[in-house]
Amino acid sequence: MPRFSADGARVLADLHALRGIGAYKTGVHRPSLSPPHLESIRWLEAQLKANGLTPAIDGIGNVIGTAGRRKALLCGSHLESQNHSGWLDGPLGVVYALEAARVLNPVLKDAGIDVAAWCDEEGHFGPLLGSRSYVGQLSDEEMDAAVERTEGRRLRDALATAGFAGRPRFKAEAGRYIGYLEAHIEQGDLLEHDKLDIGVVTSIVGIWQFKIVVSGVQNHAGTTRMAIRKDAGVAAAQLLVELHRRLPRVAGPRTVWTVGNITLVPGAPSIIPGRAELLFQVRDADPQYVARIEAETRAAIADANRAGPCETAIEVLRTGQPAHMSATVQEAIEAAAAAHGASTVRMPSGAGHDAQFLSFAMPAGMLFVPSIGGISHHWTENTSDADIVRGAHVFVDTCARLLAA
Amino acid sequence: MPRFSADGARVLADLHALRGIGAYKTGVHRPSLSPPHLESIRWLEAQLKANGLTPAIDGIGNVIGTAGRRKALLCGSHLESQNHSGWLDGPLGVVYALEAARVLNPVLKDAGIDVAAWCDEEGHFGPLLGSRSYVGQLSDEEMDAAVERTEGRRLRDALATAGFAGRPRFKAEAGRYIGYLEAHIEQGDLLEHDKLDIGVVTSIVGIWQFKIVVSGVQNHAGTTRMAIRKDAGVAAAQLLVELHRRLPRVAGPRTVWTVGNITLVPGAPSIIPGRAELLFQVRDADPQYVARIEAETRAAIADANRAGPCETAIEVLRTGQPAHMSATVQEAIEAAAAAHGASTVRMPSGAGHDAQFLSFAMPAGMLFVPSIGGISHHWTENTSDADIVRGAHVFVDTCARLLAA
Repeated sequence: MPRFSADGARVLADLHALRGIGAYKTGVHRPSLSPPHLESIRWLEAQLKANGLTPAIDGIGNVIGTAGRRKALLCGSHLESQNHSGWLDGPLGVVYALEAARVLNPVLKDAGIDVAAWCDEEGHFGPLLGSRSYVGQLSDEEMDAAVERTEGRRLRDALATAGFAGRPRFKAEAGRYIGYLEAHIEQGDLLEHDKLDIGVVTSIVGIWQFKIVVSGVQNHAGTTRMAIRKDAGVAAAQLLVELHRRLPRVAGPRTVWTVGNITLVPGAPSIIPGRAELLFQVRDADPQYVARIEAETRAAIADANRAGPCETAIEVLRTGQPAHMSATVQEAIEAAAAAHGASTVRMPSGAGHDAQFLSFAMPAGMLFVPSIGGISHHWTENTSDADIVRGAHVFVDTCARLLAA
Repeated sequence: MPRFSADGARVLADLHALRGIGAYKTGVHRPSLSPPHLESIRWLEAQLKANGLTPAIDGIGNVIGTAGRRKALLCGSHLESQNHSGWLDGPLGVVYALEAARVLNPVLKDAGIDVAAWCDEEGHFGPLLGSRSYVGQLSDEEMDAAVERTEGRRLRDALATAGFAGRPRFKAEAGRYIGYLEAHIEQGDLLEHDKLDIGVVTSIVGIWQFKIVVSGVQNHAGTTRMAIRKDAGVAAAQLLVELHRRLPRVAGPRTVWTVGNITLVPGAPSIIPGRAELLFQVRDADPQYVARIEAETRAAIADANRAGPCETAIEVLRTGQPAHMSATVQEAIEAAAAAHGASTVRMPSGAGHDAQFLSFAMPAGMLFVPSIGGISHHWTENTSDADIVRGAHVFVDTCARLLAA
């Protein structure tokens, strides 16, 4: 079949246009449903209209631009960013989808690309709200309760301010699409380290989130002798060091775990902390490794409780089964990469993506482009222009192959 | 000389009246210049007037009730509390002072008690603002910059709301008072543990406050392999555990150190912390031990920096020389305790108190009553009624002895 290519300059120009909306240093600050995020949605609406797609926005802030073709592939990603974060995380996949529509829709007869921007993949109000809504995994009750994690704004209020409140929510219809394709920056250093062009995603890891609570005794930092203290902060530090020592023994080759936050209560300079809370996250594409990490963590906590003087408990906040990507899509990405002279590797995604929920409703796939230095979720995140353009070529050609199949 | 006593029931009634202002569980929540704190100031004004003292409030919120006697002893403490904290920390010393004025002023000829409530001993806006202002150690510039640590309210705004802005600030005049006496709960467990009635304070420890900053690399918690991480949270925990191991070797018998707060940046579940900040405090009545603790802490940090992968720095926020209490006052407390059959022990104060700054302007002393379980800076803080009443007797009698001398 003929090889399709992207217009690299157009793709870069679009990405830089989005970079200018909510710009922060060399990255962006575009939290979900914030003014810059809403501006980026309006930007996308205009682009969709200008290229023959009909945009619509639903009651959770998802944007879908439809071409109205009988045979359709859904492509997309997200437009909002983490706080003070990178310019490509999300927009790359949306612009690639737009580019695929621009290249393919005019030349294909009754097939084409629809473009999606899912709201709040970054989880400002809750994990992957938009894509979960689309596949029927977001209840009205969860929306009622959802609160933005930085400033405490209620999701319902934010949707009302945006003008989206009360609209119906888009739902995946059986058979509407032949599949879903999403491109993203790798957010790790594997492609760069191994000098590879394209990551072909095999599965998206599950995320298990735990809360660890250490209970001690709050007291005065000046008058309480060291010998009688029950300092929850010291106990939390000891547990974290112990986990760092013990968990590598039971981890798989790609298991990762992170204590992303520690809160000491009351957190004042002159008060011995009576309570410490740790957010503890574990990820692996293979749940058996997560089970081993959880068991070892519970064993370390039991040991700490036997030793005293504080009491530690662990609570499961969220478990996540890994999502498997379609073999057909993986093969199409590899064929398109070969046609463009791009090297590939099959790899799991360590990060969560909208594709993991789309995969519950249709065959789904993802391709990765390299991240410079593996940096992600920080404003210094970046990818070379050459890698961005190469990825766009492979993306457009993969779409063509899937629609031709 | 004749023995003077307090009216125990009146003292307890006053303390319970204050307990009802900003009540929180069995304690109080009465932050500096908050509505309940202002209500407690109005309560004190009314009590002072009703007992022949003339109350005045100055531009930092200090209250002084004057009896206008030629020979005067200044007595007091503070009315505000830590957040969600105990009912006696501060009010005990104010009510004892009020009681001494009620008992002694009517019977003494040209001598008497003036009563002070210093604003913000608890440091909501800054350390010991009121007593520092009184001895000339608080600049207008520091007041301009002061911000409340919980809610970020500016001191100047809070003073304006209270109606205190623009008033002159009281300043200690040479020779005005023969001395200063303050009573306080011990906030430790020494008196209870040794079954003693009264602590005679010899010195108030200096407080050295440090900020330790650990710099790592912020990155994605899913895609960044464990091997290449520079996790500032893990490094902070390792340092805290190492300090806990090493510092006892160089500490004195009463040295205490506390990490009261840890902040991970950005503090999100899916982001590896790029930065950690620890508030590290050291207290001792003997500065040589503090110097040894600081040196050992710097050595531990240097070792951590050699080992990598994060970089740690330490900054001195505040140093404090210990304040020595007047020998005359200590002897008067012991004589009064003996007259009331109360046992005593000389001890340093591990906590900071207004008396430490008053001691720069006049002979100052403090007496402690026992704290149940040594609990302090928590709403469960308490002292038995018998100990409260015994302390009031000793306080009133100490005042009489100082005024008679």
